[in-house]
Amino acid sequence: MIAVKGYAAPNAKAPLAPFTFSRRTVGKKDVRIEILYCGVCHSDIHQVRDEWGGSIYPMVPGHEIVGRISHVGEAVKNFTVGDLAGVGCFVDSCRTCPSCRAGNEQYCEQGMAGTYNSYEMDKKTPTYGGYSNCIVVDESYVLHVSERLPLQAVAPLLCAGITTYSPLRHWKVGAGQKVGIVGLGGLGHMAVKLAASFGAEVTVLSSSASKEADAKRLGAHHFVNTSDEKAASRMRNQFDFILDTVSANHDLNHYLGMLKVDSTMVLVGAPPDAVPVEAFSLIPKRKTLAGSMIGGIRETQEMLDYCASNNIVSDIELIRIKDIEQAYGRMIRGDVRYRFVIDMATL
Amino acid sequence: MIAVKGYAAPNAKAPLAPFTFSRRTVGKKDVRIEILYCGVCHSDIHQVRDEWGGSIYPMVPGHEIVGRISHVGEAVKNFTVGDLAGVGCFVDSCRTCPSCRAGNEQYCEQGMAGTYNSYEMDKKTPTYGGYSNCIVVDESYVLHVSERLPLQAVAPLLCAGITTYSPLRHWKVGAGQKVGIVGLGGLGHMAVKLAASFGAEVTVLSSSASKEADAKRLGAHHFVNTSDEKAASRMRNQFDFILDTVSANHDLNHYLGMLKVDSTMVLVGAPPDAVPVEAFSLIPKRKTLAGSMIGGIRETQEMLDYCASNNIVSDIELIRIKDIEQAYGRMIRGDVRYRFVIDMATL
Repeated sequence: MIAVKGYAAPNAKAPLAPFTFSRRTVGKKDVRIEILYCGVCHSDIHQVRDEWGGSIYPMVPGHEIVGRISHVGEAVKNFTVGDLAGVGCFVDSCRTCPSCRAGNEQYCEQGMAGTYNSYEMDKKTPTYGGYSNCIVVDESYVLHVSERLPLQAVAPLLCAGITTYSPLRHWKVGAGQKVGIVGLGGLGHMAVKLAASFGAEVTVLSSSASKEADAKRLGAHHFVNTSDEKAASRMRNQFDFILDTVSANHDLNHYLGMLKVDSTMVLVGAPPDAVPVEAFSLIPKRKTLAGSMIGGIRETQEMLDYCASNNIVSDIELIRIKDIEQAYGRMIRGDVRYRFVIDMATL
Repeated sequence: MIAVKGYAAPNAKAPLAPFTFSRRTVGKKDVRIEILYCGVCHSDIHQVRDEWGGSIYPMVPGHEIVGRISHVGEAVKNFTVGDLAGVGCFVDSCRTCPSCRAGNEQYCEQGMAGTYNSYEMDKKTPTYGGYSNCIVVDESYVLHVSERLPLQAVAPLLCAGITTYSPLRHWKVGAGQKVGIVGLGGLGHMAVKLAASFGAEVTVLSSSASKEADAKRLGAHHFVNTSDEKAASRMRNQFDFILDTVSANHDLNHYLGMLKVDSTMVLVGAPPDAVPVEAFSLIPKRKTLAGSMIGGIRETQEMLDYCASNNIVSDIELIRIKDIEQAYGRMIRGDVRYRFVIDMATL
């Protein structure tokens, strides 16, 4: 076994603290990554604090992992020692179900093995995430990361990037389309950059008027302050596609009203409570409400390559790992533009 | 003007009663239809009793109209006196917006002119429906009806038929697919007949165990009593498509859980209250919840022709118009198999 240093939540109520644990030695098909940076996702907080239920402790969070490969197993084909590499939200899946075979491992029928707060596919070995100095993963679940981009700003692409890239691609968002992005946080700011780069006409829909300048800087063509009822009402039946990135409770019917006939709104944020949807928000214009969860390995690699070619990264604030609780507090207050990333050298 | 006899609701609280009113004389492009039968839709009750708000009184309900043409305007091209004809849920639309041009008049940007409880496109002349002895409609909004089928059983196709046919076609339901139909009422029984005729493997999902025999007789391959938790839980991730025809409040998350990855559930019934949808019912398997409303004129004609070719009609109980309030009472109790149709000779 490999001795690993990290930060863990001992239970739902206690702050994260230094934690030592073991990972498996590098197997034939495994690579070992020395973690350089790990992004901090809002879902880290939900899981650390057991807000979705079923949390597994001690919990080492973190699923936006980038680093450099230090060891490769004898059967590894696609990575060599010294390569930059990334790991996202899962580290294994059944590999045989229709979703896995289609490259949609995130929808695996057996349930994917989450990078943390989960179990390996044996359903009994707990997984530990990226708030740690190294990780051992089967190469099939590891991504190539370009040397061209600032590495710390690439980390959030492994979750915030793919979570927004995948639905924008799946629903074929592009030139000639009017796209609304609800919320300008970690996910929202990536959605704006990606949708704009795909050629769509992008409108940020946010209740924080203070975010207008940032929205435009990130690539949005328009900004609508949704607290301004008059401005919001002008958006009725305007959008070909809406991506809703907000994970707080909010009124979806308001945004469904902004869709054109036969158009789709996709949820990627998960509000804590069930969302009341009016049947008349969907029926009279054959509208669609869908959900989407991260993306598969092939699509994540495609996204990383696309971002490298188009010079797209996350806007980040680098933090020391000992400041993680303070960062959580600021995230809950919405005080982050737009993603905290832990410098693992501070561990 | 033409003097017309019908039945109307004078207000939201009073019973329907005989009512005399006028319709326009037959214009150049109009046809006049002597109404023979009119189906009774659950939405008639909602509107008569102002349960959706904004009802217009006096109200002559009825949008499942079949009869025979007695007069045609001089510019009418597609109908002649003596033809059987039908009128569904709308009698006009703007004809110029993208939805109208695409043959989806039901999603007209100006708002279609409903067959009753609505206004003509001048937005001031009230429309009166099919609980009456004749109707005058522009031929572009009139359907051809086959002489081959029992006419009284064709009437409900104009709403219940097209409301289920349209989403089944739009989402390409057919052979090799497992389809769930939620609810076995006026809409549900048509959905079963149509989906089965398209080659799908049809399961009726109903809380009334007593409907199993009927479900099978109508063409369903399977029946699941949703009150039986064990049986219902075996349906998880089973369906390629679910059509939800229930207009009472019910738990959608339960049915969303029965969809396969990347599959769609479509609402055609409109529960009175907003439906709580869990984000986690949609996100983890990229599921979709959509709505659909009746169908366009071209598609309604296609449906009527399809039903004539495939010998599909509604299961009905013929009533006298003076028994309409009793029929409403029975519909509210779910005591109708599966559609009441008014014999207009009883007027």
